[in-house]
Amino acid sequence: MLKLYHHPFSTTSRFVRLMLAEHDAKVELIVEKSWERRPEFLELNPAGSVPVLVENDGPPIVGAGPIMEYVDETRGYALGDRRLMPNHPEARAEMRRLVDWFLHKTHDEAVHYFQHEKIMKLELPRELGGGSPDNQVLRVARVNIKHHLHYVGWLAGSRNWLSGEQLTFADLAAAAELSVVDYVGDVPWDEDLNAKYWYARIKSRPTFRTLLADRLPGLPAAPIYTDLDF
Amino acid sequence: MLKLYHHPFSTTSRFVRLMLAEHDAKVELIVEKSWERRPEFLELNPAGSVPVLVENDGPPIVGAGPIMEYVDETRGYALGDRRLMPNHPEARAEMRRLVDWFLHKTHDEAVHYFQHEKIMKLELPRELGGGSPDNQVLRVARVNIKHHLHYVGWLAGSRNWLSGEQLTFADLAAAAELSVVDYVGDVPWDEDLNAKYWYARIKSRPTFRTLLADRLPGLPAAPIYTDLDF
Repeated sequence: MLKLYHHPFSTTSRFVRLMLAEHDAKVELIVEKSWERRPEFLELNPAGSVPVLVENDGPPIVGAGPIMEYVDETRGYALGDRRLMPNHPEARAEMRRLVDWFLHKTHDEAVHYFQHEKIMKLELPRELGGGSPDNQVLRVARVNIKHHLHYVGWLAGSRNWLSGEQLTFADLAAAAELSVVDYVGDVPWDEDLNAKYWYARIKSRPTFRTLLADRLPGLPAAPIYTDLDF
Repeated sequence: MLKLYHHPFSTTSRFVRLMLAEHDAKVELIVEKSWERRPEFLELNPAGSVPVLVENDGPPIVGAGPIMEYVDETRGYALGDRRLMPNHPEARAEMRRLVDWFLHKTHDEAVHYFQHEKIMKLELPRELGGGSPDNQVLRVARVNIKHHLHYVGWLAGSRNWLSGEQLTFADLAAAAELSVVDYVGDVPWDEDLNAKYWYARIKSRPTFRTLLADRLPGLPAAPIYTDLDF
């Protein structure tokens, strides 16, 4: 049995939920408010961050990258042709580069700002930085997200999926990042049709449904969020 | 033939140099001043960062994490008992967690400050932030490095190497990070003897010699840097 300590609006947690769904892996989801720094959770992960995966009573598998490799190592083979990890070391390297790009660069330069200003600040207590969004930060984020969307569009336009001919973890990482910005309606999809059509394909997968059901008290999803024909 | 685009004082580049040495892999080193944003280099890695590894005329292998997996996938088996990647998925996950911890958390919270203030500011042109070190930043860094050193000491005290009984990539990642701070003499080794003895063991390995030969024009290494009995 798998248990995932996560947060519904943590992009790396969403990445893990998507990959578990693609592997048909049943998982018990436990919402962890990492800013509360629960001692029992810090024992699982001294960094205090989600996602953390626990299989049966095994040791914690900590962080999106290690979880991706673990899920592939323990379940990838069973997917056969649909394995999310390419076979060749060079193709794996390109896929891992893109996963890092989306989870770190796209996240830090664009997604993080929307996530923090529009979503987390609603949930965080005031003494930890909760409050209303800073519009100046959001203006920067709206410029930056365009560059990252165009990079997705460029990849989607030159390959079938982002990392090559097949769906891989890289597509899930990019989709997980963008999905949080899509919840607040801030992905400028019409700026890049290649990116939009790629996202429409991945959003239509049954495995994506779990994300589309997430709701944040006090912040309804943008109408586009669940629309498969956006 | 392997080519590595690196910088001598980039911690992730040092991590890659150590792992290549442990695999007896011959490599041509090319110093890349990533802040110059050379168009030919940006074609290899649109993120503009080192390290980037190229094997023969193959595609670029970008970033420390993807390079670690690539080197293990293409050369790990040949190391036999000395393989730097554990065999079991759970042990691999723990090792990858530690690699992420050192390259991201230890780096961002402590090493980065020393590296930027004391080393990179000497090399960067003034319009890109070059100049003299900010002592207030260094004061924060000196507090933070102690916490990270104690974590290394705690791991080294409870296991033979940082991630378990055998030397793994996690030891190389931690050593690469600390080695840059050691160059400027700012690792408070006497604060944690377990960490110190662990570092003395790894520093004495023949594969470490390449790092000990690095010199920065205008900033001599601290006397401790090359001393194996520090």
